[in-house]
Amino acid sequence: MPTKEEFVVTPYEVKGHIDYQRLKELFGTQDLTPALLDQIRVRAGGELHPLLARGIYFSHRDLGETLDRAARGQRFFLYSGRGPSGPLHTSHLLPFDLCRWLQQKFDAPMYIQITDDEKFWVRAGLTREETYRWGLDNLADLLALGFDPKRTRVFFDTRSIGAMYPLAVDVAKKVNFSTVKSVFGFSASQNIGAIFYTALQSVPCFWPSWYAGRAIPCLIPCGIDQDPHFRVTRDLAESLGYPKPALLHSVMLPGLLGERVMSTTGDSKDNAIFLDDRPKEVERKIKNALTGGRATVEEQRRLGAVPEICSVWALWRAKFARDDAEFDEVTRGCRSGELLCGDCKSRVLVRVQDFLSEHAKRKEAVRATAESLIIEGGERSDGSGPVVRGEIPLP
Amino acid sequence: MPTKEEFVVTPYEVKGHIDYQRLKELFGTQDLTPALLDQIRVRAGGELHPLLARGIYFSHRDLGETLDRAARGQRFFLYSGRGPSGPLHTSHLLPFDLCRWLQQKFDAPMYIQITDDEKFWVRAGLTREETYRWGLDNLADLLALGFDPKRTRVFFDTRSIGAMYPLAVDVAKKVNFSTVKSVFGFSASQNIGAIFYTALQSVPCFWPSWYAGRAIPCLIPCGIDQDPHFRVTRDLAESLGYPKPALLHSVMLPGLLGERVMSTTGDSKDNAIFLDDRPKEVERKIKNALTGGRATVEEQRRLGAVPEICSVWALWRAKFARDDAEFDEVTRGCRSGELLCGDCKSRVLVRVQDFLSEHAKRKEAVRATAESLIIEGGERSDGSGPVVRGEIPLP
Repeated sequence: MPTKEEFVVTPYEVKGHIDYQRLKELFGTQDLTPALLDQIRVRAGGELHPLLARGIYFSHRDLGETLDRAARGQRFFLYSGRGPSGPLHTSHLLPFDLCRWLQQKFDAPMYIQITDDEKFWVRAGLTREETYRWGLDNLADLLALGFDPKRTRVFFDTRSIGAMYPLAVDVAKKVNFSTVKSVFGFSASQNIGAIFYTALQSVPCFWPSWYAGRAIPCLIPCGIDQDPHFRVTRDLAESLGYPKPALLHSVMLPGLLGERVMSTTGDSKDNAIFLDDRPKEVERKIKNALTGGRATVEEQRRLGAVPEICSVWALWRAKFARDDAEFDEVTRGCRSGELLCGDCKSRVLVRVQDFLSEHAKRKEAVRATAESLIIEGGERSDGSGPVVRGEIPLP
Repeated sequence: MPTKEEFVVTPYEVKGHIDYQRLKELFGTQDLTPALLDQIRVRAGGELHPLLARGIYFSHRDLGETLDRAARGQRFFLYSGRGPSGPLHTSHLLPFDLCRWLQQKFDAPMYIQITDDEKFWVRAGLTREETYRWGLDNLADLLALGFDPKRTRVFFDTRSIGAMYPLAVDVAKKVNFSTVKSVFGFSASQNIGAIFYTALQSVPCFWPSWYAGRAIPCLIPCGIDQDPHFRVTRDLAESLGYPKPALLHSVMLPGLLGERVMSTTGDSKDNAIFLDDRPKEVERKIKNALTGGRATVEEQRRLGAVPEICSVWALWRAKFARDDAEFDEVTRGCRSGELLCGDCKSRVLVRVQDFLSEHAKRKEAVRATAESLIIEGGERSDGSGPVVRGEIPLP
C-alpha cells in the first residue's frame, strides 16, 4: 500500500491519497486561478458553473490562451469521453455537466467519444458486445444532460473508426512503446490494443481541424487522471500541424463509502449512485454513506461536522444543490452543527431521487436519436481526408 | 554483417544468406512434399502451377488438412496481401500468380489485403497519402493478373477499417507486446501503429468465418518472411473460435544484381524489374543482370553455366517460361553450355517486355472497377458482427 505521500494517477490506475497540489507539480499543469474563472464568468454573462465555482475543477493547460482566442473571435470546440464498462454513476457526469454548460455559454460544438474498444482491451471479464451495448446506453445518459443535438456529435470508436482511422494512423506513427510505457505504466504483457489506443484518444482533439482544413482549438474538460493521454497528444500536435488541445482538470470525487474514487465495477456498487439505481437502492446507499459527522448528536451540535471529508456534502457540492444559496446554507449548517447528518441525508435523497427520475425520462426521450449523432464514414478516395455522413458542426 | 550461417527473416527484416532447410526447422513449418503436390495436381486436373512444380513454394502449414477437407467438400478461401510502398516488381507477383491459379482450380474466393497503414508505419519517408495511392495502384496491378471479380474482394486497410476493426479489436486483446517483440524483433522505440498492426493482418484469416457465422478454412500463399504474422494468428485462432489459417510459403527470389531479395525502395531500383519499367529500362537491367555464366565463351561452352545462381534463370523459373518444355530447354541449354548468357538474356527480354506491355493494358482495363471490390462497411448496430456494402463471395 502506498503511504499518504505516495500516490499513482494514470488513466488506468488511481491509488493512494491524492495530493492535488503535488499532482499539478508532477504533471506540470496550471492553477485554475480566480482571474481565469472571472474571464469565464464575464463571458458567461455573470454566471459561473458550480463545478468551477466550487473548486471541483482545479487545474488546466492553456485555458487562458483558449479564452483569449475566443474573445478575439476564434471559437473552440469541446471534447470529452467515456469508457463504457457499465452503468454511469453521478461522478461520471462531472465533465459532461460542465461541457453542456460551456456549450451553451460559448456556443461551442461538442464531441463525445465512447471508447468501447479501450474498455474491452483494459478490462478483464467484459465482452466486446458488452462494452458496445454499454456504450450506446451511456451515450443516451450523456445526451440526456441536454446537449444541443445540432452542435453535438459522437465518436463511437467501433462505429466511427472509418472516419477516425486515417488520422489515428498519423498519430500512431509519432508515439512509441517507450512513451506509452512511461506515461501509462504499461508492461510488456500489456495487449497491443491498449498500447495502440492512446492514438484514438488523440483523434477527436485534431479531427475537426483535419476535417475543416484549418486550425480549430479544442478544450477538454476531464478528470485529472486522463491528463497523461493528452500530454501525449499535446507533445505531437505541433509536428502534425494541429493546435495543442487545452484542458480543464477536475479532482476525483470520493465515493459514498469513503473509497478513493467512485467505481463502476467490482465490489463497490454501494460506493456510488448509479443513474439506473432504484429509489430504494439510492435511499439505502445514502443512509449508509460516510459523512463528516461526529460520534454523538450532542458533540455534533457543539463542534459542528466536517464537510470536506463528507461524501454527502460531495453530492451537494458537485450536483445536487439547487443554487449557491442552498449550497452555502447546507455547508454553514453542517459546519455549525445546526444541520445533522440524518436531516442532510434526507434532504439530498429527495434531490437525487428527483434527478434520477427526471433523468430516466430525458434518457428515454433521446435514446431514439442518439445513434444519429454518431460520426460514420471513411477516407476520401484520394486519401486526402475524411468523408462522413451528415453535417459536422464546426466553430 | 551476419555470416553465412547467420540470417534473419521477419516481415520487417531479411538479412544474411537464408538457409531454407534451417528456416523450416526454426519456424517449425513442413516440407511441401511430392505427395502434397500430387494432391493438388489431381484436384487441378493433372496440372501443377510452375511456382509449385519448380520448388519456389517449398514449405507449408496444414496444407494437407486443407486439401483433405476440400476433397470432402469443405472449400477454402485464399488470402494474400501487399504493403504498398512503391511500384510492384515481378517478385511481388509470386503469391498472387499462385492465388489466381488456385482460385480457378479450386473455385476459391480470394481476399487481397492492401496494408497502406502498415507501410506508412514501418517505412520512413513515405506519407500516408503516398502509401494510399500506391495501394490503389498496386491493387490494379494485382487484379490485372486475372482474378475473377465475382469471387475476389479487397481489404484496403484505411478504406476497409470499418468492416475490419471489431474483429481486429478481438484479436488485439489476445496479443501482447512481449509477443510482437519476440516475433518481429521490435524494440521499445517501435511506434504503436506497427505494434498494433499484426492484429489487422490476422483479420482477413478470420473475417469470412466471422461474417458467415461458420468456420471457413483459409489458405495463405505468401513469402516465408510473412510466416511470423501468421504464427501469431494461428496461436490465437482457437481461443477466438476460428480455424487456424493454412500457409504455403515461397522462397525469397534473388534480385538481378545478386542482392538477397528484390527491393522496392532505396538504391536498388536496378535489382528488380518493376511493372512500370519502360522497355529500354528493362533492356538495360537485364543486360546488367548477374548470371551464372563463365568468364569466357570458350569456358562456358566447355563447362556450362550454373542456373541456380543466375538471376535471369530465376526470371524464367518464376514467370517467363511459356511452359515446362521451354523451361527445361533453357535449363538444359544453360547447364550444357549450348545457351550463352547473351542469347538467354535476349530471349527472356522479349518475354518480359511482352508481359509488361500486355500487363499495362490489362491494368488499365481493371483500374475503373478495382475500387468496387474494396470491402467497406461497419459493425451492426447491435454489435453482433459486420455489415458491409455489396455481396461477399463465400465458399
